[in-house]
Formats: sequence, C-alpha cells, structure tokens
Amino acid sequence: MSGIESLQKSFELYFNHRHFPLHPKSLYDPLEEFLTNSGKRIRPILCLMGNELFGEIHDDAYHLAAAVELFHNFSLVHDDIMDKAPLRRGKPTVHSVHGEPTALLGGDAMLVVAYDYVNKISSSYLKDVLRLFNKTAKEVCEGQQLDMDFESIDHVNMEDYLEMIGQKTSVLLAASLQMGAIVGGASEGNQQLMYEFGRNLGIAFQIQDDYLDAFGDPEKFGKQVGGDIKSNKKTFLMIHALETASGDQLEKLEKAIKENPENKVEQVLEVFKVCGIDSWADELKEQYLQKALQNLDDIAVSKIRKEPLHALANFLITRDK
Amino acid sequence: MSGIESLQKSFELYFNHRHFPLHPKSLYDPLEEFLTNSGKRIRPILCLMGNELFGEIHDDAYHLAAAVELFHNFSLVHDDIMDKAPLRRGKPTVHSVHGEPTALLGGDAMLVVAYDYVNKISSSYLKDVLRLFNKTAKEVCEGQQLDMDFESIDHVNMEDYLEMIGQKTSVLLAASLQMGAIVGGASEGNQQLMYEFGRNLGIAFQIQDDYLDAFGDPEKFGKQVGGDIKSNKKTFLMIHALETASGDQLEKLEKAIKENPENKVEQVLEVFKVCGIDSWADELKEQYLQKALQNLDDIAVSKIRKEPLHALANFLITRDK
Repeated sequence: MSGIESLQKSFELYFNHRHFPLHPKSLYDPLEEFLTNSGKRIRPILCLMGNELFGEIHDDAYHLAAAVELFHNFSLVHDDIMDKAPLRRGKPTVHSVHGEPTALLGGDAMLVVAYDYVNKISSSYLKDVLRLFNKTAKEVCEGQQLDMDFESIDHVNMEDYLEMIGQKTSVLLAASLQMGAIVGGASEGNQQLMYEFGRNLGIAFQIQDDYLDAFGDPEKFGKQVGGDIKSNKKTFLMIHALETASGDQLEKLEKAIKENPENKVEQVLEVFKVCGIDSWADELKEQYLQKALQNLDDIAVSKIRKEPLHALANFLITRDK
Repeated sequence: MSGIESLQKSFELYFNHRHFPLHPKSLYDPLEEFLTNSGKRIRPILCLMGNELFGEIHDDAYHLAAAVELFHNFSLVHDDIMDKAPLRRGKPTVHSVHGEPTALLGGDAMLVVAYDYVNKISSSYLKDVLRLFNKTAKEVCEGQQLDMDFESIDHVNMEDYLEMIGQKTSVLLAASLQMGAIVGGASEGNQQLMYEFGRNLGIAFQIQDDYLDAFGDPEKFGKQVGGDIKSNKKTFLMIHALETASGDQLEKLEKAIKENPENKVEQVLEVFKVCGIDSWADELKEQYLQKALQNLDDIAVSKIRKEPLHALANFLITRDK
C-alpha cells in the first residue's frame, strides 16, 4: 500500500518527460511549460490508488493517470480562455501569453494526447476505459456550460447547482478512481462503489472550498477570504442562504448582492451567520464525506488496503486548510 | 461497388439523427444545427469507399465515417473562432451566434463524441484505428498552427507550405480512407497505399482550389475570383510566384502585395501569367493526381473494385468546377 507522497513521486518519475512533438514549437512548447507548472496531481494519485486497492499497480494505471492529468490540464487551458482569466496557479495563463488561438488549439492537442495515453493500455480494458473517459469528458463540458449559463441567472436552485458542480469537478475525480479500479481488475460492483466514493468526496471537497472562502482563516487558507462573495459567485453557501433567509436577512443579502457596498463581505457573512449557513455547510460536507466513506467501506476488499484512500480523504477534507 | 451518390445517401441514413444529449440545450443544440448544415460529406464517403475496396461495407465503417465527419466539423467550429469568421457554408458561424465560450466548449464536446463513434467499432481494430485517429488529429492541429504562424511571415518557402497544407487538409482525407481500409480487413501495405492515395489526392485538390481562386470561371466556380489575392493569402501560386519571379515582375508583385491597389487582383494575375504560374500549377496538380492514381493502381485488388475511387478522384479534381 502506497501513501500520497510516494505515489506523487512515482507519478512524477513516469510523467516528467516531454509529452508533445518538438515541432511546431509555437504550438507545443507552451503546453509543456504549462504542465510543469504542476498542481497537486490529485487525479493521477486517485487513479493509482484506485488500482492499488485491488492489486499491484500496473503500468496501465500510470498511462491512465497521465491521461486524466492531461485531460484536467486541457480543461484548465480552455476554461481560462472562456473565463478570460489572467492567472492560473500564480502564473500567466496560456492564452494571456501566447494568444487565444494558440491556447485553443493547444488545448485541443492536449486532449488528443490524453487519448494517446488511454490508447497505451491493454486492449482488453480499452473499450470500457474509453467509454468512461468519453462519458466523463462530456460531463465536464456540460458542467462548464451550466456554470456559464448560471452567471446570467439570478436564482439558481440547489438541485441544479449540485448537478453542475458534480459534473464540473467531481466526475473526473470519480472516473480517475474507477479507471484505476478497472485496470486493477475490480468487479463492476466494486468499480461503481469506487466511482461513488470519488463523486461524494468531490462534492464534500467543493463544499469545504466554498466554506473556507467565506469562513476560513486567511493565513491558513492561503488566499483572501470572501473572494466568492465579492464576485457574486454562486456557491453552496450563497444558494442555501438565498433559499432559506427571510425578512430582514433576505433583504440585507439581496441589497448587498445588488449594490456591492464597500463592506459587502462583512454584510453577507453576518447574514450567513444569523441564518446558520456555516453550521449547515459543515454538516452537509460531513454528510457527503460520510457517504463517501460508506462507499469505501462497502468495497469488498480488506480494510488495510483502504488505508491510503482514507488518508487521502482526510488530506482533502480538513477543517482549516 | 457503390457510387458517390449512393454512399452519400446511405451515410445520411446512418448519420441523420441526434448525436448529442438533450441537456444542456445551450451547449448541444447549436452543434446539432451546425451538423445539419452539411457539406459534401467527402470524408465519410472516402471512409466507406476505403472499406468497400476490400470487402462488403461493415457497420464499423459507418461508425468511423461518422467519427471523421464529427472530427472535421469540430475543427471547423474551432477554426472559425480562431479566424474570427462570420460565415461558414453561407450561414453564421457557431461563435458568432452563440458566443465564443459556447463554440469553444461545443467544439470540445464534438471531438469527444467523435471518439464515442470510434469506440463503437470492433475491439480487434480499436487500437490501430485510435492510433491513426490521434496521429491525424494532432497533425490537423499542427497544420492549423503553422497556417497561423505563416500569417506573420513575409516569405514562406514551398517546402514549409507543403507540410502545412498537407497536414491541414490532406491527412484527414488520407486517414478516412485508411480507417475504412482497416475495418475492411486490408493488409498493412494496402492500407499504406490507400493513405498515400488520399494524401496525394488532397494536395492535388488544394492546388486546384488555389488555381481556381485565381483563374477559375466565376460562374462555374461559384464564388468571386481573386479572394486569396485580395487577402494576401499564401497559396501554391503566390509562393511559387514569389520564388520564381524576378526583376520587374517581382517588383510589381511585391508592390501589389504591399500597397493593396484597387486593381490588385489584375496586377497579380498579370504577373502570374507572365511567369507561367498557371501552367506550372496545372502541371503540379497533374503530378499529384498521377501519384495518387499510381498509389491506387498499386493496391492489390481487382481493377473493377477501384472504379468508385477513380470516379471520386475525377469528381474532386476537375478543371472548371
């Protein structure tokens, strides 16, 4: 059983090479550079753990770990164009340095190279993995489209928000785990539980992210608190507040959203606290985490094999990070 | 053996249904609409003919015909964003009606659905087809990038131009034929000849396209003659003219390009004629066509099976259309 750090290291050993042809440099070099400005490699680690839960890690799991990492980065490059974002992981985005056409085309090429990695796996798993990969890729596109659609809607209900955020962020985590499970030889039932574990964990993680943006300790959180509130972003907290606040509190909330006063963050946080949005969010996160852990418990392998995934869930879902 | 029209009809029967989920409509409906505004379906026909050269048309060839058609349309949607084109096939482009973010994301989803069709084929061919599909997809991206890079370069040499135009337009024709050949059970050698036939035919077609833009009969050509010259587009003709003209002619040509006079098209055409660019282009087209037909001749199947591909080559490469 391998821990997070050890898997991170072995993935980097596998992944740390050139992924694209040398020519044309104008297309491929920006992509290589973007990939080295790495994130935490959460999805590859999930893929490797999804395999190791059922058996020794197979080369195929590394190929798929690379595929999901490339897919994730493709979606970031394209999302940044759509959101007109100047920065990503503290560095200028691909389109802001190399122009939108190259970022668009580069994203396309990165998606194709993700499929190249998928095609490296054993033929016997290829059809199933490709089906899951395609389904997930479509869902991620759908999530992004819904997210953009929501920007022009005043009131988004919780059901629609859950669908959007599930597709935009959770399905890729879930699919990473399931792909690992597939090449690890898991039964269909265990694969499904692995997927549900990832989906519920992803939602718990998103609730925590929304919570920390509002109530986190700025020093531990590592970024300014209240960013979502300032930009009127739809979050679990805001949607629930708009659905449950009434009377003066609702009026205060709607006024703050509409008028963007200087002390908007304080005003909104006051409403959140009066309406108990903080404890509600904490409970909701806990519910999804427990669902995820139940999915993990239900998988028919020995408890000791599950330890790395327990540790990863704890690593992702902590109260103050 | 089926002719062009009969294959066109049977492809439409297979292809004429909804390809995308119903929800979210904002993402998928623009794509469905774009697909019904169809072109000539040349690539699907090539795929079906590539199969039928070697045996009865298999369902897999229809799946791959749909995959190449979706891939082609994905590339059009994204190219139109990059080129900021307002019209495609006489109708407003996806991004000009639905906005760039939806067109970008819709193109991504269309590429993924192309892979869904690839995944419908028999497992025994999947790895080979996916390898060819990915290789081709990367080359098409590279061709588009080189084309954009060339816009900011004054002098492009013929070798670089040939590489660009081959990747941007010919490799998908070649791969369509080869994919058909693969699922038709062709040997590797015959597959390769099928590919080369498509690649050479594609280049002959592009030379003809450039030729007709300069020297075509406007009534038969169906669009204004001289469009490429007006927009300073790099074409076979212009690159060869810049490489071969000298003295007064070169001066006249460079002046026309630089100063964009009212009678630019006439001026440039005069240089083309004095330097014999028209007959050079006609000969070059003929050379590539003959190479293509030689590739077809070299394929080890009976002559009668090759008739539809001969007819298609004639349909694509005619002197005045």
